[in-house]
Amino acid sequence: MRKISVLAFALFTISVSFSQTSDSLMIRQIADEILVNSKAYDNLTHLTKRIGARLSGSAGMVKSEKWGLQAMKDAGADKSWLQQCMVPHWVRGAKEELKIVSGNYKNKQLAVTALGNSSGNGPKGVIAPVIEIKSFDDLEAKKDQVNGKIVFYNYKFNPKLVRTFESYSDAGKYRYIGPTNAAKYGAAAVIVRSMSHSVDNYPHTGATASGDSIPKIASVAIGLQDADWLHNQLQSGPVSVFLKSNAHFLPDTIGHNVIGEITGSGFPDEIITVGGHLDSWDLAEGAHDDGTGVVQTIEILRAFKALGFKPKHTIRFVLFANEENGLNGGTKYAEEAKAKNEKHIFALESDAGGFAPRAFSMEGSAAQIQKMKSWIPLLQPYEVYEILTSGGGADIGPITAAYKIPGAELIPEAQRYFDYHHAKSDVLENVNKRELELGAINMAALIYLVDKYGL
Amino acid sequence: MRKISVLAFALFTISVSFSQTSDSLMIRQIADEILVNSKAYDNLTHLTKRIGARLSGSAGMVKSEKWGLQAMKDAGADKSWLQQCMVPHWVRGAKEELKIVSGNYKNKQLAVTALGNSSGNGPKGVIAPVIEIKSFDDLEAKKDQVNGKIVFYNYKFNPKLVRTFESYSDAGKYRYIGPTNAAKYGAAAVIVRSMSHSVDNYPHTGATASGDSIPKIASVAIGLQDADWLHNQLQSGPVSVFLKSNAHFLPDTIGHNVIGEITGSGFPDEIITVGGHLDSWDLAEGAHDDGTGVVQTIEILRAFKALGFKPKHTIRFVLFANEENGLNGGTKYAEEAKAKNEKHIFALESDAGGFAPRAFSMEGSAAQIQKMKSWIPLLQPYEVYEILTSGGGADIGPITAAYKIPGAELIPEAQRYFDYHHAKSDVLENVNKRELELGAINMAALIYLVDKYGL
Repeated sequence: MRKISVLAFALFTISVSFSQTSDSLMIRQIADEILVNSKAYDNLTHLTKRIGARLSGSAGMVKSEKWGLQAMKDAGADKSWLQQCMVPHWVRGAKEELKIVSGNYKNKQLAVTALGNSSGNGPKGVIAPVIEIKSFDDLEAKKDQVNGKIVFYNYKFNPKLVRTFESYSDAGKYRYIGPTNAAKYGAAAVIVRSMSHSVDNYPHTGATASGDSIPKIASVAIGLQDADWLHNQLQSGPVSVFLKSNAHFLPDTIGHNVIGEITGSGFPDEIITVGGHLDSWDLAEGAHDDGTGVVQTIEILRAFKALGFKPKHTIRFVLFANEENGLNGGTKYAEEAKAKNEKHIFALESDAGGFAPRAFSMEGSAAQIQKMKSWIPLLQPYEVYEILTSGGGADIGPITAAYKIPGAELIPEAQRYFDYHHAKSDVLENVNKRELELGAINMAALIYLVDKYGL
Repeated sequence: MRKISVLAFALFTISVSFSQTSDSLMIRQIADEILVNSKAYDNLTHLTKRIGARLSGSAGMVKSEKWGLQAMKDAGADKSWLQQCMVPHWVRGAKEELKIVSGNYKNKQLAVTALGNSSGNGPKGVIAPVIEIKSFDDLEAKKDQVNGKIVFYNYKFNPKLVRTFESYSDAGKYRYIGPTNAAKYGAAAVIVRSMSHSVDNYPHTGATASGDSIPKIASVAIGLQDADWLHNQLQSGPVSVFLKSNAHFLPDTIGHNVIGEITGSGFPDEIITVGGHLDSWDLAEGAHDDGTGVVQTIEILRAFKALGFKPKHTIRFVLFANEENGLNGGTKYAEEAKAKNEKHIFALESDAGGFAPRAFSMEGSAAQIQKMKSWIPLLQPYEVYEILTSGGGADIGPITAAYKIPGAELIPEAQRYFDYHHAKSDVLENVNKRELELGAINMAALIYLVDKYGL
């Protein structure tokens, strides 16, 4: 045992400037406005229940863009517009099928989803034996056995990692490049264990790489219970399955970022961006991914206008297109900003679910991170406890990279996120109204502080 | 604006003793054991789905005691036993009824629940006009209008309070002493707006005072949507309702605290208690209230034994009887400890839901609170960020008061707790396996630290 001083932990936090009294009062006003008068949950109800899934290229995408533009106007945007961008148009086609064709469980159906951007395998599908692969190292070791078989990546979401996004980073590669790696060795198709800790059996989709250099093979995910079941079957002998996917791409089509703006009162040409993505996978309502980010973005605009808050800088509220399978919205936003010679100073994103907030994650210089850390006492009453440095979000990546500006992302409690992520269960009923609102409060507070003090 | 140093916040935290390396490794072992091998969710599944509701005196209570004792043995308790105590036996009787009998909505039924410990009003029920009361001040102002009417306390759960338990403290008095206060002025019955921020219409029960000094009247709760509807009807004119409740007490009966123990290796006569309560309201499965506290308690025992951890002090794992409508289990536990001249040093409780942890709340001296705060760096990786001083839990109240020892309670994220609290929706499906486990991890870590370093 040794004596250590907890004070040491504090030495990272240095003296900074903020007016604790006036800022905490302003943030309290923001919080009261949102906790009492928020439209976030009503907006989310409309987006999920009346519009529903809104994958790039779908009818839902078109409806959601129209709704989003009207929501920006209703929230009081000084200006609002659609920013056009081309988006991919991947479709699932007729329902996929995965069926056991050997042994005692012949004809047993497994719940299955095609991976986003994956290819189908024709009207006849494929029948082949399954080979279980535990990791990419395991794939290398068994590469001579893969040809003509259906590779089953059964890599578990690591339960020991408290932060579930770390489990996702760890396991996600099997979905993203697993099919490509298996195809290199002649695999007939790929089945991936879903990236989740859920206790249900829903399969979870999500983008897989769709490079042109190797043969494209049908690629699907199965739920955790079926993955464990299939693993157990394979312990007692060979298993063959019938796998059919009808997934395919249609020609690229036109999508839009939806943008609202409060024009800055002091520096109208300097822009702070806040946003979430409007598209979702096709299996559910995209409630947590990223309906909550969308309605939080609109809610911040509404609350600022309702309070009569006039930011010094221009605040852009952006509902990004096509985050899930292309990132074309975020890319377009940065390209057009550069082309128009806009000046951007900060960007903030919410795309980690509408759960109770815990932290912000920030990408920026050490001094910028320090400055944000100094604001924690102002945020803690609303449940943001720390500033992490695991980066900003996907959609703001292009704008922060193009301008070399700091970016941040709201980090909510994440134990439940991957229960619903990209699955049939990502529905309104799994969102709590007040957790959603607390996220919006902290985001609004952070924008208020960055607008006032810079970073 | 003024310069302030964030360092100032840290000056409250003083030098303390702990071995960061060995303690953080031990806590990591506890976490891994629980995240990988936990039986908490399986136990909760059994308790909620196979046993279900377990109000004092009910068949569910008896079944749950038997199950709990076996679960202690299965988890590896050195000793386990039942501690007998008398418990009240309140029953709802035949389903309550609340029906509009006037105006355009004649015969409309409202969803309703009798308040726990409340009285029924005979086979004929009562028909009377409703008078809406906004607060106890409002009751005083209208006391001359109350006689013969049904008082409708429509006091809202305060949305501005971020900590929902503060809203509960604020609004809960209308359920607890509202009926008594209304009866004093001759009210025919009482309807209470449920204590919740939920977006559904479930009515929430909970104990009301059942003093003997004033006439007992039927007392029920209605859901938030019906409360708003009734309020709106009352704006346009008088509303009369038919209200019938069949609630009543049967004679007191025998219940039990379920106790397991790991005998201390150094100071076996010095006892640390950890627990939750086994009883629940009758409307649902008592999943969050307090099935999660029960299975966390058993899980800590299981994990300690699985890891071969030998605490210096004796650790008592207690599933308390009758928290909801009497606190007879907690009271009995303290009485018997005193009668047997036991030595108690610390008590810990989980009775605020099985959500992701945020904090511990502690009752103790300034030095003891400081010492617990110094452990935050060891707990923060598992999502406990702060030590609050809002007191320990209800069940450990008698033992901490009797011995003047510190007590603590796990404080999870609380936005969802009152959505389910005492309502039909308090079911397993609203508990997340890993959030539940993270609570158990932090509780086990705290017990480990108190056992090693004292408080």
